[in-house]
Amino acid sequence: MALSETIKVRVRFSEVDSIKMVWHGNYVQYLEDAREAFGSKYGLEYMRFYENGCLVPMYDLHLKYVKSAKAGDILAVKITWEKVYGAKLIFKYDIRREIDNELILTAESVQLFTSLDGELMLLCPPFYEEWKQRWIEEARK
Amino acid sequence: MALSETIKVRVRFSEVDSIKMVWHGNYVQYLEDAREAFGSKYGLEYMRFYENGCLVPMYDLHLKYVKSAKAGDILAVKITWEKVYGAKLIFKYDIRREIDNELILTAESVQLFTSLDGELMLLCPPFYEEWKQRWIEEARK
Amino acid sequence: MALSETIKVRVRFSEVDSIKMVWHGNYVQYLEDAREAFGSKYGLEYMRFYENGCLVPMYDLHLKYVKSAKAGDILAVKITWEKVYGAKLIFKYDIRREIDNELILTAESVQLFTSLDGELMLLCPPFYEEWKQRWIEEARK
Amino acid sequence: MALSETIKVRVRFSEVDSIKMVWHGNYVQYLEDAREAFGSKYGLEYMRFYENGCLVPMYDLHLKYVKSAKAGDILAVKITWEKVYGAKLIFKYDIRREIDNELILTAESVQLFTSLDGELMLLCPPFYEEWKQRWIEEARK
Repeated sequence: MALSETIKVRVRFSEVDSIKMVWHGNYVQYLEDAREAFGSKYGLEYMRFYENGCLVPMYDLHLKYVKSAKAGDILAVKITWEKVYGAKLIFKYDIRREIDNELILTAESVQLFTSLDGELMLLCPPFYEEWKQRWIEEARK
Repeated sequence: MALSETIKVRVRFSEVDSIKMVWHGNYVQYLEDAREAFGSKYGLEYMRFYENGCLVPMYDLHLKYVKSAKAGDILAVKITWEKVYGAKLIFKYDIRREIDNELILTAESVQLFTSLDGELMLLCPPFYEEWKQRWIEEARK
Repeated sequence: MALSETIKVRVRFSEVDSIKMVWHGNYVQYLEDAREAFGSKYGLEYMRFYENGCLVPMYDLHLKYVKSAKAGDILAVKITWEKVYGAKLIFKYDIRREIDNELILTAESVQLFTSLDGELMLLCPPFYEEWKQRWIEEARK
Repeated sequence: MALSETIKVRVRFSEVDSIKMVWHGNYVQYLEDAREAFGSKYGLEYMRFYENGCLVPMYDLHLKYVKSAKAGDILAVKITWEKVYGAKLIFKYDIRREIDNELILTAESVQLFTSLDGELMLLCPPFYEEWKQRWIEEARK
């Protein structure tokens, strides 16, 4: 089982810096775009968490830059959900240049669960546990 | 009377584009930085409005680009409050390169007053009327 | 004749501010996205100008904010080329919320032509004159 | 010996998201601001590298989010240079809220050296080796 989604991002003129390469901070946005798309596809949007009384703040974000991208490049941003035991949400990512499949970046993000006023939750929120069970069973079929 | 404030902004590496000039959209942030500094100086912060039950959404923003700035340039962003009659908040701005006083940009912003749920206010909120009176009297001294 | 293009933009979570509305500066990016799409559609990309020895820096940008948009909203950004006589490039824009066609923003941008080292061009670059003629004739058919 | 620099950053209104906390991607900019300040203090600016025929692209960036910051918070961003043997540039960072010294974020960045056209350099550029020697000797005094 691999829950994943891939989005296409076109590098904007304003996202490259004076050496004509994407400014390294902008990839963080592309990863969030992929997370949002993943959420839409699998019913795990931010709003879904919010309505269930929790937030999923970023806890750890690790980016490894392999090659640079430039304005106009089409990037394929792939996000994959990682099955883990603790009360956290982990995604892995890789970004490839569409035209030649060249690897641009890999990344991993860890998010925690908190209540709406920011208190850390030591267990996954029930709706997320159910979501997880459903997908794990789906995969066994 | 001229209520005004000037801030210094250093152009960041990430704010210039591939032709090594500040990307034109980034000036909007510099203007907001100046508004925040003006608010701190004269007691007119966003929070002040908020605590008085109102928001001041942008309604009209007009930027005139005169010269370009590049990474590392120190810019002096001057904001001046405009005395007007209607229920709106108007500021004028000019941005100059500090080293040679060269004019980079002029701008004008118009903000309206709304309630916290976004309903337009046809009169200035009372605390702002008082603020205005106080400064107009101050200026007469 | 109306040369125009419309793109769809989905408001990102990171583009809204603490009152859950799109931060007003972010619309400048949406307008640039529309200009890039217009350029791709009609053969008027930045690169095209660059290869012909010129840049088209922003000279005047005027935004009128009508309504706010929030995270997740799909916006239709329409850009229309304006036929003008002088050596400048003018576009008009309107942004509507897709779901109910509500008008969110209107804008107008004026760009000038400069050489690659920033010297103002008093006449349109020849390739742009040809582009203009071609489209004007196209429209007469 | 610890070569370090600390800058103060005031969280902007536009940098917080709809839950009123700094959007996690914005910290990447604060870290770059600190690197630029470090460069100015110790003579290691991007321009210095550029004039010596090299670039220092980001290779690995690891952020650990401890607490959230909100609009108006003053953050102290501390950057420390790490002495390493290979041909890379490593910095460690911590960000603290000024008012109570609360830890907000820690991070580490690894940059590599490339020629101006992006070819990886397996040895540090000579001017950087000299820079390193000078500071190591300075520290022995």
